[in-house]
Amino acid sequence: MTELPESEVDVLIIGAGPAGLMLALWLARLGVKTRIVDKRTDKVYSGQADGFQVRSLEILDSFGVGERVWNEANRMLEISFWNPDSNGAIFRSAHSVNTIPGLSRFTESVLHQGRIEGFFLDAIRDSDTPDQALRVERMVIPTSLEIDESAVEDVDAHPVTVTLRHLTEEEATPTQMLSNLADGIFRSNLAEDDVGDILERSKAREARDEIVRAKYVVGCDGAHSWTRKTLGKEFEMKGETTDAIWGVMDIVPITDFPDIRFRTMIHSTSGAIMIIPRENRMVRLYIQLKEVSAGSGRVDRSQITPDFIFKSAQKIFSPYKLEYHYCDWWTAYQIGQRTGDHFSKLDRVFLAGDAVHTHSPKAGQGMNVSMQDSYNLGWKIGLVSKGILPKEVLSTYELERKKIAKDLIDFDGKFSKLFSGRPAKDIMDETGVSSDEFQKAFHTSRMFTTGVGVNYEPTVLVAKEAEEGTDHGLKRSTAKSTQSLATNCKLGQRFPSHKVIRQSDARLWELHHKLPSNGRFRLVVFGGDISQQSQRDTVNNFGAWLKFYMPKLPTIKLLPGSDPHSGSMKFITDEDPSIVDVLLVHSAPRDKIDLLGDVHEVYHPFDPKLGWDYDKVFADGETYYEEPARAYEKYGIDKSKGAVVGLRPDGYVGLVTPVSEKGQQEIEKWFGGIFQHE
Amino acid sequence: MTELPESEVDVLIIGAGPAGLMLALWLARLGVKTRIVDKRTDKVYSGQADGFQVRSLEILDSFGVGERVWNEANRMLEISFWNPDSNGAIFRSAHSVNTIPGLSRFTESVLHQGRIEGFFLDAIRDSDTPDQALRVERMVIPTSLEIDESAVEDVDAHPVTVTLRHLTEEEATPTQMLSNLADGIFRSNLAEDDVGDILERSKAREARDEIVRAKYVVGCDGAHSWTRKTLGKEFEMKGETTDAIWGVMDIVPITDFPDIRFRTMIHSTSGAIMIIPRENRMVRLYIQLKEVSAGSGRVDRSQITPDFIFKSAQKIFSPYKLEYHYCDWWTAYQIGQRTGDHFSKLDRVFLAGDAVHTHSPKAGQGMNVSMQDSYNLGWKIGLVSKGILPKEVLSTYELERKKIAKDLIDFDGKFSKLFSGRPAKDIMDETGVSSDEFQKAFHTSRMFTTGVGVNYEPTVLVAKEAEEGTDHGLKRSTAKSTQSLATNCKLGQRFPSHKVIRQSDARLWELHHKLPSNGRFRLVVFGGDISQQSQRDTVNNFGAWLKFYMPKLPTIKLLPGSDPHSGSMKFITDEDPSIVDVLLVHSAPRDKIDLLGDVHEVYHPFDPKLGWDYDKVFADGETYYEEPARAYEKYGIDKSKGAVVGLRPDGYVGLVTPVSEKGQQEIEKWFGGIFQHE
Repeated sequence: MTELPESEVDVLIIGAGPAGLMLALWLARLGVKTRIVDKRTDKVYSGQADGFQVRSLEILDSFGVGERVWNEANRMLEISFWNPDSNGAIFRSAHSVNTIPGLSRFTESVLHQGRIEGFFLDAIRDSDTPDQALRVERMVIPTSLEIDESAVEDVDAHPVTVTLRHLTEEEATPTQMLSNLADGIFRSNLAEDDVGDILERSKAREARDEIVRAKYVVGCDGAHSWTRKTLGKEFEMKGETTDAIWGVMDIVPITDFPDIRFRTMIHSTSGAIMIIPRENRMVRLYIQLKEVSAGSGRVDRSQITPDFIFKSAQKIFSPYKLEYHYCDWWTAYQIGQRTGDHFSKLDRVFLAGDAVHTHSPKAGQGMNVSMQDSYNLGWKIGLVSKGILPKEVLSTYELERKKIAKDLIDFDGKFSKLFSGRPAKDIMDETGVSSDEFQKAFHTSRMFTTGVGVNYEPTVLVAKEAEEGTDHGLKRSTAKSTQSLATNCKLGQRFPSHKVIRQSDARLWELHHKLPSNGRFRLVVFGGDISQQSQRDTVNNFGAWLKFYMPKLPTIKLLPGSDPHSGSMKFITDEDPSIVDVLLVHSAPRDKIDLLGDVHEVYHPFDPKLGWDYDKVFADGETYYEEPARAYEKYGIDKSKGAVVGLRPDGYVGLVTPVSEKGQQEIEKWFGGIFQHE
Repeated sequence: MTELPESEVDVLIIGAGPAGLMLALWLARLGVKTRIVDKRTDKVYSGQADGFQVRSLEILDSFGVGERVWNEANRMLEISFWNPDSNGAIFRSAHSVNTIPGLSRFTESVLHQGRIEGFFLDAIRDSDTPDQALRVERMVIPTSLEIDESAVEDVDAHPVTVTLRHLTEEEATPTQMLSNLADGIFRSNLAEDDVGDILERSKAREARDEIVRAKYVVGCDGAHSWTRKTLGKEFEMKGETTDAIWGVMDIVPITDFPDIRFRTMIHSTSGAIMIIPRENRMVRLYIQLKEVSAGSGRVDRSQITPDFIFKSAQKIFSPYKLEYHYCDWWTAYQIGQRTGDHFSKLDRVFLAGDAVHTHSPKAGQGMNVSMQDSYNLGWKIGLVSKGILPKEVLSTYELERKKIAKDLIDFDGKFSKLFSGRPAKDIMDETGVSSDEFQKAFHTSRMFTTGVGVNYEPTVLVAKEAEEGTDHGLKRSTAKSTQSLATNCKLGQRFPSHKVIRQSDARLWELHHKLPSNGRFRLVVFGGDISQQSQRDTVNNFGAWLKFYMPKLPTIKLLPGSDPHSGSMKFITDEDPSIVDVLLVHSAPRDKIDLLGDVHEVYHPFDPKLGWDYDKVFADGETYYEEPARAYEKYGIDKSKGAVVGLRPDGYVGLVTPVSEKGQQEIEKWFGGIFQHE
């Protein structure tokens, strides 16, 4: 046998679905040497996941791709509940708002997975540099993975060795897919894993193998994750599988059902349906298949045809008519919830997305939680690879995301049970699910399902008090926050976005647009009414300290695409800025402030080639063109006191502290704990 | 000599600047067989025009490209005026709002011409069909043009014969441009026309000529227009040329001038400057060059260097400092205003844009009026080519646009004079321009400069009363409008955009997004409170009449890209819809209306493959996520009466009439006059 080619890479990503692509985008923006491989021949073109929760949209927007989703997607603004009346005929029992108003500038939306995969690929390309043009390597499958445990503590080592096999198109194409693109069963949990099959078929092609030595490997390779299986028995997922089978169809409906363009839950005596109105006049129907059951073993897949699924749907819709001419995609799945105990091995191999949690798709969570996993991991792995963060930070990934996965499968278990349950006949019917009960469960779950409810625990990254009995063993920050200074900037939660007015040119901005995902931490200085001399002195004294302190922090190279919303203020300097970005949001009357004259230069830094920076100081209050901004009120900050809010690169609040000497000390402690290499 | 290759085309466009590309986009969307040629090797890459007025942004948005401009451009929201104090030092004499608030969802914005040319090229490509993929043919120059006058009345004839010469790259590149891309003088009015030069140099290459026979030819070939010159002496432009010379520089400024990111007019004792803050941290400076003058003849161009222009700017900025490291582009021009008497020859050859009006660039009008010229012409030429409209409609182009050109050069003459004038020392200084006088002129001009003030005269297209003494000789509509029913939908003016709520899914839309530029006329039925039985009967009776009347109208094939904002309701049917689109906007409480049950099917037409159309009925009033829509109030329509507003394909109001039998008669008259082939 000839020797196999060998190469080194910082990060190897296995799997190019939403989780893998989110990670690849992060690493492309951070300029980390990365490869991403996928066993399939191409990205998804129809069907699959479609729900975008508001936090996902915010995250996508932080990379500059949120707007493309937002414009193309169907927005689900209101929701209808239908139940059987005393004669068994369905009627609209309730209609209400869907996403909680005021939570985010986005609402729950729907667009098929193939589009977002395409947007990721475009955005990754936007980050091309002369040193790296990251592309998905398709038809590539790993065949072995080994970790050199003696080298895992050495941050410069490449201790993970993976063998990759390059497949032919025939080897990489699932047998079923050759005949019918619209049939999604081959990706469903009713289908067997085909990796063994592919390996068997491609055995003769060992000559096309290669060896990759990676600092880090991330398995984003889905529910059948090869990476997870390879890591060993202790990575097995555990959970429940019910015998409930549901069908899914993406059709352009021809119907007289009045709520077909609203998100709608129908509980009828013939079973349940969830209607998800989609892009391109399509509607996704999740259809309970009461006439099949997994029973004790596997389902008879031959029974499950589009015709069978659709007939079930028609029964549930009755007396309303339902027909279709176009069907874009269909599949079926068995309801179950599973997750694993470990999200990483030695902080060198990680699992994200479906590879480490699976559940039923109806709440539109899967793609979202998966992308949010790798959004959490991406900046950590990236900044550790670049030597900016110490390796210890990596252990916060499992801590932060395992809890979410557990919450997710708990939620899905409850929600699925309620959904598949028999509708109650009346309030005396104790084993049936009442309409009220279902609606209540739906509304209480909303904060969780939006992704905005995520609340990370205290570590070096989040300077907050630990609740009792929650010792997770990881190091904590020595900084102490003063949460009361910014009551709606909750420690451990995502910093919300509200509108502020740019001092230099009066343009209104979502504050999130000034916090793009480019690896930088942030200090948002809410300086209060700086038209008052004493408050201005406070803010400028704080600025003078920042000017002295900032040079002690690392710097970061910003790459193309790293400031996607800057528009008129696009970054064109070649000097590396600090890893910490400073923004000032004041509450003084805008016309009372002279940006260059009144405010310390740390808030409008000077560049010898570009002049002053006009994109760092923002005001609350009035403009000519829109309702007044009310940022201080919405962030829960007192205009007479102000606050400094410290943000992680993923936009989660890590510190709330006063604009004062005490604040300076807490900031030193917070960043000291984060950036300290031991 | 060998015979030249010959071919036929419906429309030949000469020149691929903003006017030519706007026309090409229209014709691509309408599926008209078109060619567009340009003498240069490539599109513009820096400098040139940069101002986008709100009407232009609305128009671009109607093709789906407005958002790209809006996101990348710098928005100019407020304006500063600086004047010399009694010691001659400049000070901020006023600061106020720039674009009139409430006029449009857009504000005046700035982005360089190369970007919008790129967006046009992308949008044209989005309209590709198997039959046509329209592309700009570069390095092609016309050498002769003849009209067969005997065939001009035959709509199927190709009476215009043009010889085109295909150049080499060297022949097509201006000599000056070979050395310095950032120097824009070669496109300035201080430069000589280089067409003669190109023809001379390419003489030996006659073998690469071809003959094109076109139904219509449109000259969008700029101030030196070859097309205009070829049409003869009566097409010569007339007007004034002053001796005032101005320089222009696009720089990233390094300055302590406090208003550098606001649109600012400085009048100093050393001359005047206008500051236009731009994208990419750039600023455009228009700089009065008091030390050079055209005098009686041509300017000495060798005198005008970036260094010379910049030193003039520094003097005017003093005592504020001004430096730069990056200069993206610079040029200089001589102030003058010229326009022609004729915009078309025999309605077979047309002129648009700079080819038929030139003026000074400071008010940011040039690119806008040019694009609006061809926006006015595009649908007319397109629908006539397709046999939908009679040829007579073409004569409305000159009528409608010549008036605008005249207004434009009048405005520019006054504005330039005020701008180049010496600032008044005090109110007794009668020959100087006072700050008040200048500001007043600025504010009164705003309605004109936004492009929203355009008001087309009564013709078959606009059913309104003629003012006395305004007989233009063109046929008028026999329909009579009732303007009082919709006081803010002014006949002859662009229909404004306000927010409405889609009945089927509660999504808020700018009504403009439901009126894309795809060749269709519109009837917007403001049906009032249709939760009241009598009003519902009125609207449904009107619907029943529409159902009967519509089949008498022509149909139109819609092409890819023709519904750019439809998002979730994207067009995928292959049936040709009516040339007239019907939308219903009601003012009933949204939850009181059942789209399928309460409203006549003409307002939600059925397609056998797609089901009902859920994208045609909209409500006024409340939503969960934004301020309530107040469409009726903003359109000036009484909820108890309603109104039908008839729109041309370019969004101008052509008819206002009641939702009644009288309305039906007026609609029959209006469309009868428009579609009648004689």
